[in-house]
Amino acid sequence: MDSTFRRTGNIHLQDLIDGLLSGNRAFLSKAITLVESKRSDDKKLSAELIDQILKPTNKSFRIGITGVPGVGKSTFIEAFGKMLTAIGKKVAVLSVDPSSNRTKGSILGDKTRMDELSKDPNAFIRPSASGSSLGGVAHNTREAILLCEAAGFDVIIIETVGVGQSETLVKDMVDYFLLLMLAGGGDELQGIKRGIMEMADHILINKADRDNLKAAKRAREDYKNAVHLFPPNEAAWEVPVGLCSAIEKTGVKETWGEIEKFLSQTKSNGWFDENRKRQALKWFHERIQARLEDHFYSKPEIKQEIKKREELISSQKLSVRKAVDELFKD
Amino acid sequence: MDSTFRRTGNIHLQDLIDGLLSGNRAFLSKAITLVESKRSDDKKLSAELIDQILKPTNKSFRIGITGVPGVGKSTFIEAFGKMLTAIGKKVAVLSVDPSSNRTKGSILGDKTRMDELSKDPNAFIRPSASGSSLGGVAHNTREAILLCEAAGFDVIIIETVGVGQSETLVKDMVDYFLLLMLAGGGDELQGIKRGIMEMADHILINKADRDNLKAAKRAREDYKNAVHLFPPNEAAWEVPVGLCSAIEKTGVKETWGEIEKFLSQTKSNGWFDENRKRQALKWFHERIQARLEDHFYSKPEIKQEIKKREELISSQKLSVRKAVDELFKD
Repeated sequence: MDSTFRRTGNIHLQDLIDGLLSGNRAFLSKAITLVESKRSDDKKLSAELIDQILKPTNKSFRIGITGVPGVGKSTFIEAFGKMLTAIGKKVAVLSVDPSSNRTKGSILGDKTRMDELSKDPNAFIRPSASGSSLGGVAHNTREAILLCEAAGFDVIIIETVGVGQSETLVKDMVDYFLLLMLAGGGDELQGIKRGIMEMADHILINKADRDNLKAAKRAREDYKNAVHLFPPNEAAWEVPVGLCSAIEKTGVKETWGEIEKFLSQTKSNGWFDENRKRQALKWFHERIQARLEDHFYSKPEIKQEIKKREELISSQKLSVRKAVDELFKD
Repeated sequence: MDSTFRRTGNIHLQDLIDGLLSGNRAFLSKAITLVESKRSDDKKLSAELIDQILKPTNKSFRIGITGVPGVGKSTFIEAFGKMLTAIGKKVAVLSVDPSSNRTKGSILGDKTRMDELSKDPNAFIRPSASGSSLGGVAHNTREAILLCEAAGFDVIIIETVGVGQSETLVKDMVDYFLLLMLAGGGDELQGIKRGIMEMADHILINKADRDNLKAAKRAREDYKNAVHLFPPNEAAWEVPVGLCSAIEKTGVKETWGEIEKFLSQTKSNGWFDENRKRQALKWFHERIQARLEDHFYSKPEIKQEIKKREELISSQKLSVRKAVDELFKD
C-alpha cells in the first residue's frame, strides 16, 4: 500500500504532513503524538514522517531555559514568548521534565501556567513528552523540535527544571542555554544541581523588582565575578548576567537582545553550525547505545541476574570484572 | 590444572597474589600489568586474581588531583606524598591521562618528575594505564586501585589533567577531588574545562609564594566567593579554598588536615560508603555498556555503515531515527 494512504489514527500520513507544513497546530500536535508512540505500526509511519519533513532550513533558534521551581520560569516564558510573537516570531514551548516518569505527572508545559501565550495564535505549548527513561524523553523532545521547525516555528523554547540530569540532555539539544536564578544566593539555590551554572550561556536573575531590586543588583555583581572565574566556553561567548522581572516585564527585551548578539556571533564564527552537527552525531550514537541496551536489558531473566550481582558488588563480594564476564558468557 | 599452578609470565598466580598481599611493589607492578593485558589467557588469570584479592577493607582513601599542565601537579604530589609517608602512610600514585592513547605517549606518572617520592620505600608510582579508549583506561585504573589497596597502600592518588573528559571518570573513582589552580584567573584558566570547578571538593591555589603570594591571596578570596554561589555538594561538604606552595612546602599539611576533616564527616554521615557503593554500581553498568558496544562496533563493515550515515546526518539528509533503524534491521 502506498504510504500516502496509510492511516495515522484518523488521518492519512500525507494529510498530516501537509497540515504540519502549513503550520497548523492541531496537526503539529498529532504529529508529535505519533512520533512518541511506541506501537510498531506508528513507528513505521513516524520514520516516514520524520524523513519527509527533514529539510535543512536551520532558520529556527533553540533555547533551553532552566531554573529551580519557584524561580518563575513559566511567568518568564509567558512574558518572553509574548514579546517574541509581538515582533512577528512564531514560538513553540516544549519541556523535558525529569519527574514526568513518576506518578506525580508533568509539572511543566502546563498551558494553564501560560494563559496568555497559550491563546496566542503564533505560539504552541506542549507538555513534557512521556517516556520510559529520561533518554527516551530527550529523544522524543528532539523529534518534536524537528516537527515544530517543519511547522514554521522560529523560536523553540525547551523548558526544564534544574534539579536532575535533564539539563545535560537539554543542553545537548539547544543552541543557547539560559539559567534563571533568584537573588539571595542562599536557600534559593539549594535545589540547583552543581555544574549547571557553568553550562549556562546566560544567567538571568528573575524577580528583580520592588523590594527585591537591591538584592538582585548585588547578586548580579556576584555572579558576574563568578562567571569571570569560569573558563571560557566553546562558543567564545562572554556569558551575560542580567536582571529581569517577568511580572513587571522588564529585562525581557534586553534578554532577546543578548540572544541576537549570540546568534550573530556564533553564526559568523561557525560555532552555531558546528554545534548542531555535533549534537546530531551525539544523538545518533546515543540512540545506537540505547538500542543495544534495550535489547540486552529486555532479555528474560536478565533483570534478576543483574540485581543479584548488584547486591554482591555492593557488599564487595564480587568484582565488576567477574560479574560482567558471567553476564556475557553464554 | 589448578589455578595456583597457572603461570603469569614468569610466576605462578599464587606467588603473585602472595607477593602482592605482602606489599611487594614489584609484584604489585606485575599484577597491574596482568590486569591491563588484552590477551585472553591473561584475562582469565586477571579475573581470578581480582576475585581473590577482593577483601572489603575500605581502609584506603582515594584522592583525585587535577589541574592544567604547568599548575605544578607533580611537585605538589611529591611534597604531599612525602608528607604522608613521613606520618606513616603508604602512598600510591596512579594517573589517568587522556593523551596517553595518542602517539605522544604518557605525560603523567613519570617517575622522573617525582624523584624523591619514587625513591621512597612507602610510595608506589605508576604511569597512566594504556587502553584503546578513555573508558578502558578508567577501567584499568579502577582495577589498579583495588590492587594497590590489596598491597596495603593507604592513600591512593589519581592524577589527571583538567583538559579533557578524564575528570568525570576520575571523579567517579575517588572519594575526594582536589583541583589545583593558579592565581591570575585569566590565561592560566584557559585550559581548564568548564564544570570542573563545581566538581571539586577542594580548590588549592598553588605557587602561593614569593611575588605571587599577594595575587594568590586575592584569588583565594575570589574563589571563596564563587564557591559560596555554587549549590551545596552531595556530601554536604563545604569546599575549602586553600593556598599552597609545593616548592616552599607550605599549605601541604593543612591540605591533609582538610581531607581528614572530610573523611571523618563523610564516614559519620554515611556519604563515604554510599558514594563508594554508587561508584561500584555505576562501574558495573558502564562495563555492561562497553561490552555491548565493543561487540556491536567490532562487527565487520559496521564502521563504514556508520560513517556513511554520519555524513548524511551531518548534512541533514538522513534522520537519526531512520539511520538507527537501518543499522539494526537484519
